Amino acid sequence: MKIFLAQQNYHIGNFEANTAKIIKAIEAAKQQQGDLIVFSELAVCGYPPRDFLEFNDFVEQCLAAIEKIRAVADTIGVLVGCPSRNPKVEGKDLFNSAYLLFEGQIKGIVHKTLLPNYDIFDEYRYFEPAYEWNVLEFKGKKLAVTICEDIWNVGDDPLYRVSPMDKLIEQQPDIMINLSASPFDYVHEDGRKQIIKQNVQRYRLPMVYCNTIGSQTEIVFDGGSLVMNTNGGLAAELPYFTEGMQSVIWNDDGSFSGNAAHNTAGVAMPDLTPKEFEPGKNIGKIHQALLLGIQDYFSKMGFKEAIVASSGGIDSAVVLALACEALGPEHVRALLLPSQFSTLHSVTDAEQLSKNLGNHYDTIPIKGIFESFEHALAPVFKGLPFNVAEENLQSRIRGALVMALSNKFGTILLNTSNKSELATGYGTLYGDMAGGLGVLGDLYKLQVYTLARYINRHREIIPKNIIEKAPSAELRHDQKDSDSLPEYSILDPILYQYIERRQGPREIVAMGHDPALVTRILKLVNTNEYKRNQFCPIIRVSPKAFGVGRRVPIVGKYLS
Amino acid sequence: MKIFLAQQNYHIGNFEANTAKIIKAIEAAKQQQGDLIVFSELAVCGYPPRDFLEFNDFVEQCLAAIEKIRAVADTIGVLVGCPSRNPKVEGKDLFNSAYLLFEGQIKGIVHKTLLPNYDIFDEYRYFEPAYEWNVLEFKGKKLAVTICEDIWNVGDDPLYRVSPMDKLIEQQPDIMINLSASPFDYVHEDGRKQIIKQNVQRYRLPMVYCNTIGSQTEIVFDGGSLVMNTNGGLAAELPYFTEGMQSVIWNDDGSFSGNAAHNTAGVAMPDLTPKEFEPGKNIGKIHQALLLGIQDYFSKMGFKEAIVASSGGIDSAVVLALACEALGPEHVRALLLPSQFSTLHSVTDAEQLSKNLGNHYDTIPIKGIFESFEHALAPVFKGLPFNVAEENLQSRIRGALVMALSNKFGTILLNTSNKSELATGYGTLYGDMAGGLGVLGDLYKLQVYTLARYINRHREIIPKNIIEKAPSAELRHDQKDSDSLPEYSILDPILYQYIERRQGPREIVAMGHDPALVTRILKLVNTNEYKRNQFCPIIRVSPKAFGVGRRVPIVGKYLS
Repeated sequence: MKIFLAQQNYHIGNFEANTAKIIKAIEAAKQQQGDLIVFSELAVCGYPPRDFLEFNDFVEQCLAAIEKIRAVADTIGVLVGCPSRNPKVEGKDLFNSAYLLFEGQIKGIVHKTLLPNYDIFDEYRYFEPAYEWNVLEFKGKKLAVTICEDIWNVGDDPLYRVSPMDKLIEQQPDIMINLSASPFDYVHEDGRKQIIKQNVQRYRLPMVYCNTIGSQTEIVFDGGSLVMNTNGGLAAELPYFTEGMQSVIWNDDGSFSGNAAHNTAGVAMPDLTPKEFEPGKNIGKIHQALLLGIQDYFSKMGFKEAIVASSGGIDSAVVLALACEALGPEHVRALLLPSQFSTLHSVTDAEQLSKNLGNHYDTIPIKGIFESFEHALAPVFKGLPFNVAEENLQSRIRGALVMALSNKFGTILLNTSNKSELATGYGTLYGDMAGGLGVLGDLYKLQVYTLARYINRHREIIPKNIIEKAPSAELRHDQKDSDSLPEYSILDPILYQYIERRQGPREIVAMGHDPALVTRILKLVNTNEYKRNQFCPIIRVSPKAFGVGRRVPIVGKYLS
Repeated sequence: MKIFLAQQNYHIGNFEANTAKIIKAIEAAKQQQGDLIVFSELAVCGYPPRDFLEFNDFVEQCLAAIEKIRAVADTIGVLVGCPSRNPKVEGKDLFNSAYLLFEGQIKGIVHKTLLPNYDIFDEYRYFEPAYEWNVLEFKGKKLAVTICEDIWNVGDDPLYRVSPMDKLIEQQPDIMINLSASPFDYVHEDGRKQIIKQNVQRYRLPMVYCNTIGSQTEIVFDGGSLVMNTNGGLAAELPYFTEGMQSVIWNDDGSFSGNAAHNTAGVAMPDLTPKEFEPGKNIGKIHQALLLGIQDYFSKMGFKEAIVASSGGIDSAVVLALACEALGPEHVRALLLPSQFSTLHSVTDAEQLSKNLGNHYDTIPIKGIFESFEHALAPVFKGLPFNVAEENLQSRIRGALVMALSNKFGTILLNTSNKSELATGYGTLYGDMAGGLGVLGDLYKLQVYTLARYINRHREIIPKNIIEKAPSAELRHDQKDSDSLPEYSILDPILYQYIERRQGPREIVAMGHDPALVTRILKLVNTNEYKRNQFCPIIRVSPKAFGVGRRVPIVGKYLS
């Protein structure tokens, strides 16, 4: 039996485009005498559709897409993800389902049992879990079809009380097929292969695993669909961060022919979130994820041009370099906004950066505007000393200028705030926190440095001076980040323990960190939630990013 | 038996304050010979604690609070909400529980079965549902204790496959006691009483229902705790939007002595979200909810002073009036920011408003600053015509000025955007969309008018001219909202159908609305999600507010 895996990039709610893409793959597989083609979870509408699922109109369009796909599923079996309606009055109205289409008919529908409802996931918001389990019969074989999370309930501390494969195995299936929408983070990929291996070994069946790729606002899906034999060997592995389609031959003895180029299925189960912060971990994959995140944000929103406020600092340099790589330097403009507090090298470094990248840049000094604000505010401020009000004002003048260019030329502002800044509130709302997409918001400052060096791995794109100088917001004379914050080599590991690993103050102090510093940093994180709440979507690359996956109260008093 | 209901306002994560408040109520009830005192859901930590529950440290502090409360629960029984740990390895690690404390011991713990996971609720993110049900024995009586949502699974289309009271009734309890954290919205209250009545009639038992009050960032809890006899009569009803404590005598015949002042338990089950938009519905309660929302935001964040950008329009007038009522006019300052496009009456109306309210106001014309921006941008804009870039720039100059005062004087900016504007994207990010709290973000423009008239019910606080003139952003010469948007009397009902009632384009057109207009408005709503995503928390008064309760993709293509 010839089985195709279609690893595709969908556009949420764009039924026309998604259905056309699915049908095109089916037609190609038919031409190559495919018996079965497998798509990913909720392929017809894209994942995650979120509250669009509350619209009957949206669900009807999903079901209409299935009708169109059914019509071409004649000589080939199609397994595709789509919501289905719960026929019982009790329980939620929808299931998260996989449809088996064949001979122009819906041959079977299976429902997802384990509905992830943590981090970025909200599936129990929409779906009823399956409470009956049946294999799907296809060409004399029994397919144990599951959906994403369904195969993840393994290990010492299972999140759910039931595992659907434990039910399906009773019906003696011949194969496991899993339709996924499993997002990337820099520790997730190794874990995913190991989970599949655990299932293969536990149930003594091969697994066909089809994942989606593409970035959906903040969530990056990295693909890496694969086929694993019962012995744990990889018969196929699809590419990462790009679409792909591949066929495998399923032999009568139950094995799959073929050997994947990178057979890494034997890796040990990693600690899913490493105990210690590792600023260099998987930086190459993070780089790919950020590029895809930028590209898909622009292409799916219908945008072409980006703008970056280029300060001569490392964060904006990395964002500008990523934007030029993702969109082409001809689609990226930089805006230099020097103030009276900007050092000369900030300007020359930013200019050199754009010369290296080949993107257009403009320079608008903000001094005159700042003085006009000072003049207008003088009657109200009545000679009160320069303080955070004036610091923030400079940042907000820059925000207004870069947004003026954004509005005038239709360029989307890429935000340059990093995770260390966002965590501690070291940024100005409506100033440097402005923007449509947070490119570095899930990278601690030390990761930004690692990424800068990675970007320079072939040649010096980011001027060395930008990487080496002490970080500064340059909002008052001779300011350094370290005036307000501890050194990043101390700050970042503490933030990592609190944010990624949800360690409390006692646990973090027990790791050897200074108690007063831990108290101060955790308080900064919690009291600045109101700022992050108004921040743009952040491309997620870690197991715990700020944004939809981290929901903490704004008004509250915990460690604050 | 003398039972106390303690309807209290908690501060999320402030264990010291919450525990002290709970213990104080217990001591008062003991002095009055109370047998049992009932608190609300998750009282020890406040509701909703959100991802704080992922911190072991936080859960330990919850359990430590129980220990303190247990020590005073000697001669009186205490029913109080608190998380508990799931002893099984399978399933999530926590339950949402009610503890019965008596004679210095934990006499029993029951867990919530039905975990709401819609709108603003995320309980399945944290909690395992109960799968065993037992009454609690107390002084020879059997208490059927449930938690909030547990009693809501009634009606023709139940959301859950199990109802815990159906299980508990098998053990022949004597009474139902429900610990709630049930939020206000302007259609919810009537429904809540009716739900309780349905339970009372179905299980033929009286119900003690204890709700929390207080605003938690965006969610307002309105209290209204009550005791209902088996005949549906109210034996007690606690106040709305304020703390309260009341005792009732539970007689040996199973009835409660006492008659509530407003015995409205016989109301018919309302359509929970009315089929048609009613801009005047429950405006008095909305007014109370907004006042509480402002007050609790300030008191719980530790703020005292507010600032409002006062334009002479109706939205800022209503916000200023609410702020003065909630915080006192001595704690509120207005900032008038006229431009070359502001009409004279905008300034005089805004001045008159502050004179009526008695709050301090300053005036800073923005013309000079705007010209300095134009001058700085001229080399880049090269004579391109005035367009949305310059319109937004004026709004952002205002944003920067009002934030400069906010930073200088420690005043929190109250945002004045209404729901109609937020829905259609008729606002400027980092300009008039700036602020710490969205006071009117859950009121359509027609509701804002109703509220303005309500505020003027005793005397003219908001000058008549502000209410009567045509709404305008005044960002270009002679601009009116109606240049860009349909009249609010047409717009608001369409928005209501789409947002509150999740009706699709076909359904809305079938109600008689113009198809092209419906398409245009729904597209505006969906394409402006990116703006709302960066908006501050909105005080929620409707069954579907923008913010945490409405989660739609930013990048997507559905009705857009």
